[in-house]
Amino acid sequence: MSSSSRLDDPEESFMTEVENFFNTAPPLKDHSVIEKKLKGFIERNSHASENGVSMKRIVCVTSGGTTVPLEQRCVRYIDNFSSGHRGAASTECFLKAGYAVIYLHRRGTCQPYCRSLPDDPLLECFESVNGSSVQVQQAQAEAVRKAIANHHAALAAGGLLKLQFTTIFEYLQLLKMIGIALRDRESRAMFYLAAAVSDFYVPWESLAEHKIQSAAGPLDMRLAQVPKMLSVLRKDWAPLAFCISFKLETDSHILLEKASTALKKYNVHAVVANELVTRKEEVTVVTTHGKTCIRREAGDDEMDRKENEKNTNTNL
Amino acid sequence: MSSSSRLDDPEESFMTEVENFFNTAPPLKDHSVIEKKLKGFIERNSHASENGVSMKRIVCVTSGGTTVPLEQRCVRYIDNFSSGHRGAASTECFLKAGYAVIYLHRRGTCQPYCRSLPDDPLLECFESVNGSSVQVQQAQAEAVRKAIANHHAALAAGGLLKLQFTTIFEYLQLLKMIGIALRDRESRAMFYLAAAVSDFYVPWESLAEHKIQSAAGPLDMRLAQVPKMLSVLRKDWAPLAFCISFKLETDSHILLEKASTALKKYNVHAVVANELVTRKEEVTVVTTHGKTCIRREAGDDEMDRKENEKNTNTNL
Repeated sequence: MSSSSRLDDPEESFMTEVENFFNTAPPLKDHSVIEKKLKGFIERNSHASENGVSMKRIVCVTSGGTTVPLEQRCVRYIDNFSSGHRGAASTECFLKAGYAVIYLHRRGTCQPYCRSLPDDPLLECFESVNGSSVQVQQAQAEAVRKAIANHHAALAAGGLLKLQFTTIFEYLQLLKMIGIALRDRESRAMFYLAAAVSDFYVPWESLAEHKIQSAAGPLDMRLAQVPKMLSVLRKDWAPLAFCISFKLETDSHILLEKASTALKKYNVHAVVANELVTRKEEVTVVTTHGKTCIRREAGDDEMDRKENEKNTNTNL
Repeated sequence: MSSSSRLDDPEESFMTEVENFFNTAPPLKDHSVIEKKLKGFIERNSHASENGVSMKRIVCVTSGGTTVPLEQRCVRYIDNFSSGHRGAASTECFLKAGYAVIYLHRRGTCQPYCRSLPDDPLLECFESVNGSSVQVQQAQAEAVRKAIANHHAALAAGGLLKLQFTTIFEYLQLLKMIGIALRDRESRAMFYLAAAVSDFYVPWESLAEHKIQSAAGPLDMRLAQVPKMLSVLRKDWAPLAFCISFKLETDSHILLEKASTALKKYNVHAVVANELVTRKEEVTVVTTHGKTCIRREAGDDEMDRKENEKNTNTNL
């Protein structure tokens, strides 16, 4: 009975899936602390004016990959590759353009203004002098100074709020909280969804409590699809916000078609299509008005050249 | 025919598995550069003397978790939770005790002498002064100075070699290279295997080339067991080296039994048994002479208290 009525109404069945996801997810730690911070940030930036308009625009930039735990007491998890460089770079641009930015990022990924620094700036950029004081190395001095100064200035100006996630459960609960909190901002809010969000997960209740044992031979796993929350963001959480999503594929043959499908299906304003290997050089922005391919000019950005070099080693 | 002969000889069948693993793994980038570095390090430390004995002891400390790619052009992978704090702390202790240390660690995990620092020391410990220079914050000054001074001193003294891995393929190829390179050092070499190594993987040839598509419903995955390379390390690569392995479980009921089984099965000198939730407070060292439980005294180490606080948020 219930399964036949579900089949009858895919919309209802989808909403049940969404509800199930949130009802069974492990609750967010510090939920109320984060919500208070978020509301304070939105409130303060509602009074700030921007270019003579009385309400500053707020963008939520998502960045980095989400994880999917394979055990409740989590030793193993599935992760999505993403350094967070695009989200960090975009955050810098939005701040420069006068937006207030909620930077919803994966713990430990790239921070705004730090893209040109080595992976481990403390050990690679600083030296100890006579064992008694610490000094930045000459060659890195300017990059380090800029990173720290710009980052602290952005935080001090009150236009940057950083929120962190690790799992898909944390990410989607935070996105929902931000969506609902920004609903009243209508078109003065934007979602810029650059995070690499898991498509598959193991529902919390189906997770093994303990570490999966390896003695029993090969491991068979069934992963369920994560409900496409972009639909819910567009329809329920913040329907009037401007919304840009990202599509990453490794196969260029299906990329643009998938981007066009996503544009219609989720009713977003733009989809940025990018291919894994060329993503730092070229993207295609797909809107209802058409497709625009954007290529980086040679020597465009010294910072990004350095990034590319760094990432060569972390990608298979 | 071939499958029946395999069943007849489990040893041969295991060695075939091991060979297959290495033959089908994506080859290590910079293989020859790393090998040259490693041999140079061993050579230099063979001439260094320690406490009047002419050949310095060398320990290979492994640290952090390995990943298992789920696609050849890797977007998704399975990861093993490990901050690398134990490996980093142990490296500091071995260096203090006069060993030369090969620190084989997961990219981006904890570095020796940096355990007490925040996750993002650059942005959390430094401030910019008048926008023109960079200064360490007073409260963190001593910790930062120590981290940089000790770390640079260890590298300058030539007793610390840092090698990095991300995937299980990189890790096992590096471990094999180090094992074989240390073979002649016999009992003046040690393996201290604190890394969280994947038990399951998808053989490279079975991996999907492209990103797995999510439209097709739930995802079924079959993961093969990673051959237990500890056997090969003990029998073939470096049979005379002293060898300590680690066993992490979430279920305390099976932990000690599994540690005892591992001790016999792999013929290692000691197994350090630890449970996920109490691992920073208590371990049991299992040897052929018995089991020794070691508990941290309250207030033992300020550094570790800070670590615990930090890790609370990253663990589910």
